[in-house]
Parts: sequence; C-alpha cells; structure tokens
Amino acid sequence: MAEEKQSKITPRAENFAQWYQDVIAAADLAENSPVRGCMVIKPYGYAIWEKIVAKLDELIKKQGARNAYFPLFIPESFLQKEAEHIKGFKPELAVVTRGGGEELAEPLIVRPTSETIIYDAFSRWIQSYRDLPLLINQWANIVRWEMRPRLFLRTTEFLWQEGHTAHATPAEARQYALKILKKVYQVFAEKSLAIKVITGIKSESEKFAGALSTFCIESLMQDGRSLQMGTSHDLSDHFAKSFGVQFLNQAGQQVYAYDTSWGVSTRLIGGIIMSHADDKGLVLPPAIAPHQVVVIPIATEPGDPALKAAKKIADSLPKAYGAQFDNRLELRPGEKYYEWEKKGVPVRIEIGPRDLAENKCVLVRRDTGDKQSVPLTELKAKLKAVLADIQTALYERTAQRVTERTANAETWEDFTKKIEAGGYVKAFWCERPECEQSIKEKTKATTRCLAFDAQIEDVSAPQCIAGDHKAKRKKRWVFARAY
Amino acid sequence: MAEEKQSKITPRAENFAQWYQDVIAAADLAENSPVRGCMVIKPYGYAIWEKIVAKLDELIKKQGARNAYFPLFIPESFLQKEAEHIKGFKPELAVVTRGGGEELAEPLIVRPTSETIIYDAFSRWIQSYRDLPLLINQWANIVRWEMRPRLFLRTTEFLWQEGHTAHATPAEARQYALKILKKVYQVFAEKSLAIKVITGIKSESEKFAGALSTFCIESLMQDGRSLQMGTSHDLSDHFAKSFGVQFLNQAGQQVYAYDTSWGVSTRLIGGIIMSHADDKGLVLPPAIAPHQVVVIPIATEPGDPALKAAKKIADSLPKAYGAQFDNRLELRPGEKYYEWEKKGVPVRIEIGPRDLAENKCVLVRRDTGDKQSVPLTELKAKLKAVLADIQTALYERTAQRVTERTANAETWEDFTKKIEAGGYVKAFWCERPECEQSIKEKTKATTRCLAFDAQIEDVSAPQCIAGDHKAKRKKRWVFARAY
Repeated sequence: MAEEKQSKITPRAENFAQWYQDVIAAADLAENSPVRGCMVIKPYGYAIWEKIVAKLDELIKKQGARNAYFPLFIPESFLQKEAEHIKGFKPELAVVTRGGGEELAEPLIVRPTSETIIYDAFSRWIQSYRDLPLLINQWANIVRWEMRPRLFLRTTEFLWQEGHTAHATPAEARQYALKILKKVYQVFAEKSLAIKVITGIKSESEKFAGALSTFCIESLMQDGRSLQMGTSHDLSDHFAKSFGVQFLNQAGQQVYAYDTSWGVSTRLIGGIIMSHADDKGLVLPPAIAPHQVVVIPIATEPGDPALKAAKKIADSLPKAYGAQFDNRLELRPGEKYYEWEKKGVPVRIEIGPRDLAENKCVLVRRDTGDKQSVPLTELKAKLKAVLADIQTALYERTAQRVTERTANAETWEDFTKKIEAGGYVKAFWCERPECEQSIKEKTKATTRCLAFDAQIEDVSAPQCIAGDHKAKRKKRWVFARAY
Repeated sequence: MAEEKQSKITPRAENFAQWYQDVIAAADLAENSPVRGCMVIKPYGYAIWEKIVAKLDELIKKQGARNAYFPLFIPESFLQKEAEHIKGFKPELAVVTRGGGEELAEPLIVRPTSETIIYDAFSRWIQSYRDLPLLINQWANIVRWEMRPRLFLRTTEFLWQEGHTAHATPAEARQYALKILKKVYQVFAEKSLAIKVITGIKSESEKFAGALSTFCIESLMQDGRSLQMGTSHDLSDHFAKSFGVQFLNQAGQQVYAYDTSWGVSTRLIGGIIMSHADDKGLVLPPAIAPHQVVVIPIATEPGDPALKAAKKIADSLPKAYGAQFDNRLELRPGEKYYEWEKKGVPVRIEIGPRDLAENKCVLVRRDTGDKQSVPLTELKAKLKAVLADIQTALYERTAQRVTERTANAETWEDFTKKIEAGGYVKAFWCERPECEQSIKEKTKATTRCLAFDAQIEDVSAPQCIAGDHKAKRKKRWVFARAY
C-alpha cells in the first residue's frame, strides 16, 4: 500500500519531536485528519490498540467491573452541577447546538469524560447497600478541544476506557481506586507494555477536576520528559452529592455513596513509542505486538524452496504470535527487513537456500539487532525464549532509565540544572500552589506526584526547593518536565 | 441490584410495543437517558453486544478487512460533496458549532455515517492498483437525530460497525458488497443470532443515500413486521468521484476506484428480542448469550451440600459457556428461576438434596420450558446437545415464521388484506417511486427488497399490484410493514 512506502526517520538526538512523528509515519500507525486535532488511527496502529484493549479489558473485569455504554452527549446543565468539574473542563468543550434541523433548547456537550452522565444513572440504579459496590467500565471516544495536537499524545478526539464505581464507604472507594491503579494500570504498563512506571498521588493543582485525590502512573520517556499514562481518582462523595447518589445503609439511613473514576487512553501508544522505539523506527513489546514474528523467505522466484519452507515455519507457530509470512516477490529481502523493522515486529525469521540446506533459519531480534542461526527443530523453543527475553529486556531498559535519570536536588541551582538535563528530580516542597506555579514558570517542570514509595527522610526541617517556606513533609515530591 | 428488581411483562398479544419495552426492562438491557433519543446500554445488554462484536469482527476479518478508526467529526463541506448523500442525511444531523470556547468557522457534523471522511483518507492512501483492494472496517458510535426513539431500534446515538472498501473494477466492488451480505451478515444472523433472514436488493427510493445499489438482510418479527437488520452498499464510483479516489491502473491510466460500504448496529439486539423473546421475557440464542447456563442450588442455608454441588457443576463446565453460579441465599430458588428466565439464559441447571442423592441434576430449557433429570456423569454431553438444539430450534422457529407468513398477492384487495394481517406479501410492481409512495400511504407497507431468490414467473404481462401500470419484471417484490 502507498501508506507503507519508505520514509526517512530523523534521529532522536537531532530532533526528538520530529523523530516521534517520523516513527508514526514510518510504521503507518496514524495520521492527522482534515478535522483539526482529530487523528485517523490506521490499521496497524489500531491493531496495537486492539491488543491493548483485549488485555486491559481482561484485567478490569478481573477486578469485578462490568462494561456498559452511556450517551456521547451530556446536557450542559449536568456538567455545571459539580463546580470544580465544569471549571476544569470548560475550555476544552465541543458543543452541539443544532440537532435534527433545529436549534437545541439546551446545548449538548460532547463528552469530555462521563462522570456527570454516569452518576446521574447511578442515582437511579442505586437504592440500597445491597446495590453496592457498583463497578462499571466504559470503552468510548472522548472529545477535549486541543490547541496544540500531537498524534496519540494530545488529540481533540481520543479513545479510552473510563471506570466509574460507587461504594458504601470512603475507605472502600479509596482502596478500589488504588487497586485499579496498582493491579490494573501498573501491572499492565509493566508486564504488557514493558514500561516501568512510578506511582503516586497528584498535587492539589494537578488532580482531576472534581476529585478528592488523583493517583497516577507515569514514566520517563527517552528524552527525559515524563508521560502521565493513567490516572485513578478518589471522588469522595463530591459527585454523589451533586447527582443525588444515595442509598439506604444497613442502619436504615439514607446516605451518599463514594465514587471512583479511572482511565487510560490511546495516549498509551505514544508512551510505547517514546519508551521503546529507536532511530530505525518502532520497537514493540511482544505482549502487544499485532505480529510478534515475521517470516521472510530469501527468495526471488515463485517456486523457490525457501518460500515453501518459510510458509511452513509461519504456519507451525502458535496462533497467538500472529506470525506474518511475507511472500512478496516484488521486494528484495533487504527491503522487507527494513519495512518490518520500522513496524517494530519483535522477531524476524529469515530463511534462504543456505539455511535450508542445513535445516536452519536465522532469528533476528528487533530490539538489539542480534542474529543467531537456529536449527529448525529448536526454533519453537528458541523463539519462545527470545520473545520472553525481549519483553523483559525492554522493561529493564525503561527501569534502568528511571533509575539513572532520577536524582535528588538540594538547592534551587541544582534543581534547575537537573530539570534542564531531563529526568525526574526529587525535592522537598512547601505544597503551596503559588510555589508550584512559580517553579513551572521558571523551569517548565511540574510536580508529577508524591510517589507511594517516597521515604520519610532523616532531616530536621527541610526547606521548599523553590523558596524560604518550610517543606510540608519530610518526603520529596517528584518533579519533571512532562508531556 | 435495584436494576434487577422484578417487573411485569405485558403479554405480546395485548400490546407488542409495550411488551418489547417490558422485556428490555425486565432483562435489564438498557434504559432511556436524560438525553432525548440516547440510550444507556446497561451491563447485561452490553455483554450481549460484546458477544455480537466478537463474532462479527472475526467474520469481517476473515473477509480480509482490517479495523481502523476515523474522526467522530466531519466538516460540513465534506457531507455536501456527494449531493444525494447530504440530501438523505441532512434532517438527521447533530452539529457542533462551538469548540474550545469559540464559534467554529466551519461547523462540524457528528458522524451519521463515515463515507465522506473515509473516502477523503482513501484519496491519500490509494495511488496505484497495487494499493487495491483496500478493505477497512470501523467500530464506532453514530448519531442520527431521531424524533421517535425506541431502545435499540431507533436511537439518536447507536453503536455499529461500518465497512468501507475500494476496488479496481465495478464488478469486484459489487461482488465484495454481496460477499459481506451473504458470508458475514446472513451467516451471522442465521448461525449466531438464530434468525432466518431474507436477502435482496432495495428499491431506488429505499437505497442508501449516495449508493448505486443497496443489498439487505431482513427478517420478520413476531408481530409480522419486518426489521432491516443489515445493509451492504455498492457505491460505484460516486464517492470516489466526489473525493478524488483515483489510482494508476496497470495500463498506466489514472482512473477512479469503486467503493462499497456496509453496516450493522445495536439494532440487532432489538431483532433478537422481537424474534425470540416470549411473554416470560428475553430468550437468547446460546451463541450470543453472555451466560449460556445458570446453575441454581436448591438451598436455603450456608453449608447446604447442594451449594457445593452446584458450584462444582458450574466450575466443571467449559469456560465458553460463561456459566453463572447463583449462590444468593436471600432469594428463594423460584425467584432465581424467574430472574434468569427474564434474562433469557438458554439453560438452567437446578440441583437440590433429592437430585444430589441420586447423583443427578435437573436441566431446564428456556425456549420450551422442557425439564429433564440428568445423571451428573452425563451432564456435559447432554448440555452440549441441548445448547446446540436450542440454537437450531430458535432458528427453525424464525424460518417457519417467514415461510408461514409470506404470501403472494394478486389483487389490491388481497394485498391490503394480507398487509393488514402482517408478514411478507409478494407482488408484482411497476417500480415507479410514485406508486411505491402511494402504496406506503395507503397501507403503511414499503418495499422491503427484490429477493435474490425471487423466481421469474410464468406470466405473460403482469400488472403492478397498485394500479394500471405494467410490472417492470416478472419477479415479485417483497412488501411489508417495517420497523
């Protein structure tokens, strides 16, 4: 297809933002559409999303949530019921004012998130403590008007899942929000996406509009900037009060429920690219690769025995690998290698006349470029081991990145220098929003989170990194420039 | 959950439309939302949709199509490029006029279907005959303003898949449109939904706005009205010309591509209900039932041996059955039977002390109500056979319905009487739109299709059923009142 034609990839060191775009184009993942800010997710990009959805859906259901579907449109008055919520989302809204040929009496908002329409439904569905917990998840498209769109990372429309739950007590709600963060999002990011994440709680100014607390998973991209990859919110009874989500508790009292909401989106694909891809193009972790293996015959003529041998190999592999057999004769083997490298297929198997004579094939790793000759009788076992090894190696690389590029800062000079160099910088902070804002203006760095594993340090009276105020606690916050 | 509380179902004979609503409420499938015309698909209804999606997706991919995702919003000017298309859809559009806090220079339409935005992309993706055929499918939400909404059947927002393909020749495009109709839609409706369908071509006035020809699958609901369940369109080069989808053919000439589009939606769930459900509630064909089996212990105390035995049965069944083990002790067995009957679970397994003593259990079919006592050692084989039998029996019932309620009409009196009685009426027609319109006004019946299996009859000069004109051909069209 024309869309798969060769395209040059700018090296990361030269221009990271351009490299990112080039990798997407070269792997044929997505493109900008004529509708500003909205992307077209092309078949190969969508196949990755399907892999993500399948695995996440399984993990979410394991936590007891069931899928449902709520309207795309939200009455404007609904959004206004929770004051912080409308304040946070107002600048990003797309508004339908005409429908069926007439001006609407009340404009409809294209959902920027679904708390309001879902908690309205919950107010009807929940009557008694027996109806709790109510655990719902939705796969949907979302619209938030974006002034500076970037494919996958910031788009006016994106795809996501959003979980919404109601619980009988504040403690149970908070616990569930944390469970989703750790047992779904963190596990998925680390095991399936092979991306080491940090987990923690957001500052007051960075939390979700309407939440009591927001928890996050974030990771460090290859350019040293942080990417927020998923969030889980403890909504307390804020929305329950706005939408009348009440229930009769065991003591016979009418009380409010406690809600959580949580989501990850097509942004994860941006995270995969910026975590793993290299100057040759995309690199996919096997767990979410549409094709874990491509088999390429070194053959130029129809009837070439290598063609048949390659097909036999492809057919013999477990279906879960999604093995691709590339039998195009109009391309030279080298052109095919190049194409599948750009698409990030974890393992390439080459087989030519010489290999065939020895009953062998060549196995090439996308991540390291390592080649090895493997007897065909050992291929299955070897391939399984190599795929597992790639999955682990990719994860280790990101874990190492986080470790190497995380540092403490003790002085403002130290802090600004380290922020400029990229990576996570841990520092004490007074927790005043004014100070956070000033840090952002001066360094472009923001608080990413107070990590769950932050230690209470053995210091008497730590000072805020940015000024004369005392730090609020003896734990350091994580700062970084972020996407 | 409160949503699962008992609710009375109006008998079909008393009020079919009310019965339909009652079945949906009793099975807890969906509800109206505060946004007029938009529904909330509740977890059990969505679980059925997930089953539909999984199976259809597999069938679609088998025909070579790959999934992708295109923007929700379509510039107004795009829709206007194909004159028939905008004419057909204009009354149903929802229009975004504000975004990101500003009035938009060009309003955006919330997609009522995606031909325009997709063929615009195709014009960039297709360059040469080597890029063809291009076979794309999209799972998405769709908005068509609905004045008289009915859950699943007619909603302002609905979920669907829409396929869009481009081919080198008109013949190949038409062939592919037909292949999707027969090998995907018909096979899915008959094998998975257990609904016998008729297949054929739509009249000029009933075809898709912008198509050369529209092919359809339809079936007869229990009230004798027809439901259009899926359509596949031969778009010829109409959209290719409007959007410049051209390619260099093997002779080196720049020529237009030929497109098809095709879709089925959440409307199918309405079709399942109206085909199979009865006065006790929903009846699901096993192939798309979220739970094919529910196991109910006849037990009132924790520690009751029947509880353990029931769990053992549920755990022993193949995972694909999605067996539900109902261990609630606060409900009497009879209440549970009633609840799962309303949800249409194909098979209920009861096990109580008496059965246990004999190493047996009771197997109850939802469709017929038949009960049989089955030795536990034979349960697996028996269950498999019964599920297969239910799937077949449901299909046969719909096939019989179509056969019994299809009749020829020779005179206008005969025609109006038979239309009034419900079912399909086959008649000769002049194929003038004026005549079609007049039939519709007088009888509320529309042309459903010219069935593919319509025979050329041995008549010399057949007259149009509605007047003095000569019939256009010696084949009868299918007429019916329809949803």
